[in-house]
Amino acid sequence: MKPVKAYAAQAADKPLAPFSIERREPGADDVEIKILFCGVCHSDIHTARGEWGGTIYPVVPGHEIVGKVTRVGQNVTKFKEGDTVGVGCFVDSCMHCANCENDLEQYCKNGNTQTYNSQSQDKQTITQGGYSSHIVVTQHFVLSVSDKLPLEKVAPLLCAGITTYSPLRHWGVKAGDKVAVVGLGGLGHMAVKLAASMGAEVTMLSRSKSKEKDASELGAHHFRLTTEKDTMTELADSFNFIIDTVSAPHDYNEYMNLLTTDGVMVLLGAPPEPTSVAAFPFIFNRRSLVGSLVGGIKETQEMLDYCAEHNITSDVEVIGIDKINEAYERTLAGDVHYRFVIDMATL
Amino acid sequence: MKPVKAYAAQAADKPLAPFSIERREPGADDVEIKILFCGVCHSDIHTARGEWGGTIYPVVPGHEIVGKVTRVGQNVTKFKEGDTVGVGCFVDSCMHCANCENDLEQYCKNGNTQTYNSQSQDKQTITQGGYSSHIVVTQHFVLSVSDKLPLEKVAPLLCAGITTYSPLRHWGVKAGDKVAVVGLGGLGHMAVKLAASMGAEVTMLSRSKSKEKDASELGAHHFRLTTEKDTMTELADSFNFIIDTVSAPHDYNEYMNLLTTDGVMVLLGAPPEPTSVAAFPFIFNRRSLVGSLVGGIKETQEMLDYCAEHNITSDVEVIGIDKINEAYERTLAGDVHYRFVIDMATL
Repeated sequence: MKPVKAYAAQAADKPLAPFSIERREPGADDVEIKILFCGVCHSDIHTARGEWGGTIYPVVPGHEIVGKVTRVGQNVTKFKEGDTVGVGCFVDSCMHCANCENDLEQYCKNGNTQTYNSQSQDKQTITQGGYSSHIVVTQHFVLSVSDKLPLEKVAPLLCAGITTYSPLRHWGVKAGDKVAVVGLGGLGHMAVKLAASMGAEVTMLSRSKSKEKDASELGAHHFRLTTEKDTMTELADSFNFIIDTVSAPHDYNEYMNLLTTDGVMVLLGAPPEPTSVAAFPFIFNRRSLVGSLVGGIKETQEMLDYCAEHNITSDVEVIGIDKINEAYERTLAGDVHYRFVIDMATL
Repeated sequence: MKPVKAYAAQAADKPLAPFSIERREPGADDVEIKILFCGVCHSDIHTARGEWGGTIYPVVPGHEIVGKVTRVGQNVTKFKEGDTVGVGCFVDSCMHCANCENDLEQYCKNGNTQTYNSQSQDKQTITQGGYSSHIVVTQHFVLSVSDKLPLEKVAPLLCAGITTYSPLRHWGVKAGDKVAVVGLGGLGHMAVKLAASMGAEVTMLSRSKSKEKDASELGAHHFRLTTEKDTMTELADSFNFIIDTVSAPHDYNEYMNLLTTDGVMVLLGAPPEPTSVAAFPFIFNRRSLVGSLVGGIKETQEMLDYCAEHNITSDVEVIGIDKINEAYERTLAGDVHYRFVIDMATL
C-alpha cells in the first residue's frame, strides 16, 4: 500500500478538504497512473453531498481521469510506463456475465465497481476516485488516450463524452438525421458536438435565450426556446432523436410529441420524481422512450479514438484543487462552460 | 350508389340497430366485397359509445373484415370476383408521404382513412365499417386471405393479429427470446400465439388465476400472477420483450423493471390517464418503452400469409348480428374467448 494525496468529503455537509488515501501496489494486471487532470461531474456533487444515499465517508470523487502510466504489473500488455491513459466511471466488473461478455460492463449483471464510493470486486475495499495524485486500475478498464489533443479537454470525455456518444451510436444516428438536444450543460454540450460531427442536423432546445450563441458555436444548426408559446406546436413530428440531458423535473410528453415516426428520446438525466407519460404519443408514431448509461470499455476506447480523429474535446475551465468547493457551487448554478477540470499538479 | 344493410349506433347512448347505408359503385381501382365475417374490437365499442370523442352518428363499426370479392374496377389487377379477401383498420391513405412510401400507411403523415368514422381522402364522405353486407375499398388496402383457414377465425387477425405481429417483427423477437404478455384478451391471446410460434419463451402475466389454463392452451410456457407478493421481485431483469395489452390504468415502472438489458416494453393499450415513469429503470439497463399501432398493408399481408402457413387463427365466438349489443357488454366484462365475430349472413 502507498499513501497518496487526495481531496475528500468527510460528511454530506462538509466541504472537500485535503486527505490522504492508500492505493494498492500494482498487482499482475494493474496499471498505476499519475493523474494529470480530473473532470468535475454532477455525480461527484450528488455523491459528496449524500444526495443519492449510500455515500460512504470519507469519499474522494472523480471519474473523468487522464494521466500517465507510472508502473505496470507483469501481465500488463496493453500499457507501459509513460503512456497517456484515461479512466472513466467504473474500474472493474465481474467479467463473466452476459453483459460483460458483450462489452457492456456498465450493465454488469453482478454489479460493476464504480470509480469511487463503490465496492471492489473482492468485496474488501471501497473505491476512491480521481481527485487524487494516483490511481491503480486493472488494465481492462484503462483507456488509451491520444497525445494529439489537450489532455485537460479530454478528461470530460471519459464520462460526459461516452454518455452522449454511446446512445448516438447505439440508436444509429447518421448524417441527415434531425437531432434535438435538451439542456446545454456538461452532457448537452458534448451531445451537440458529437451529433453534429456525425452529420446530424442539430437543434438546441433550451429555456434560456442566453444559450443561443454558445449552442451555435458548439455546432448546433438551430436554436429554439421551449418557453415560447408556439415552439412545441411548430416542432411537432420533427426529430428522429432527442437527447434529454435534464435532471430537473420536466414534461416528457411535450418532447415525445416532437419525435417523428420511429423517433427515439433518450433519457440521460434522472429527475428526482417520476414523470407522467401518455400512451397515445408512443402508439401513434411508434415512438420510443429509452435510457442509456455511459458506455462499455470497448465503446469508450472507440469514442476516444473518434474524438482524436475528429478533433473533438470538451469545453473546460481548468481550476486548482483548492477551488473545488467553489466549482461545485458554480456547477450547481449552471455557471460553467461547460466542465470544470482540476489540474492535479495543484494538489 | 347502392344501399346495403348494416347495423349502426344512432347516438352514444343508443344500442346498435338495423340501418341502411350507401356504398359507392366500384371505381376503376376499387374492389367490392360481400362481407362474410366481421370481428368485434374494443375500438368499435369506444367509438359507438363516443368514448374517444369525435364520433359522427350514425356510425357503423367494424374493422376486422373477411369476405368475397363481388366486383372489381377496370384497373384492379390484384383481385378478381370470388377471391377471398380481408380489410383491416384503414381503407385509404395519401400514398405519397414518407410513411406511405415506406409501407407504413398506419402512420400516414396526412392522415389515413380509417375503416369507419373517418374522413375519406376526397374529404367528401365519412367511412362506415364492416357491420354491413358489403364494402367497397381501393385495391391497395385489400388483403388476400387464404382459404386454408376457417374464415371466422381469420377476421380478428386484421386488427388483433397485425397489432401484435407488427411489434414482434419490428423489434426482432426471435427464437429463445423471453417474452411476457400482459393481459389476456383479444390482443393478448394473439400475442401469446404469435410469440410462441416465433420460438419465444412466453410468460403470461395476469391478475387472474382463472386465465392460467387458457394461457397454457394458447401456447404460453409460464403463467405468473402479478397480484402475488413476490412475483415482480422474482421476475426482475427477466424479459427481452413485454407486450402490454392493458388499457386500464396500471404502473409501467413495475413492468419496466422486469425487462433485462436492452429489453423493450411495447404499449398496445392506452390507459385513459397518463402513467408515471421513473428514469432510472430506463437508464440502468438501456430499457425502452415504445408504442405500436396495427401495421402497414405490406406487413398485414405478410402476417396473413404467416398465419396461414403456421395455422394460426384467433379463438372466436361466432354470433348473429342481433346479439351485437349483448356481445358489447360481454366484451367489456372480459367474458369472451377471445373475440366475438359476427356471421354477416345473419344480417
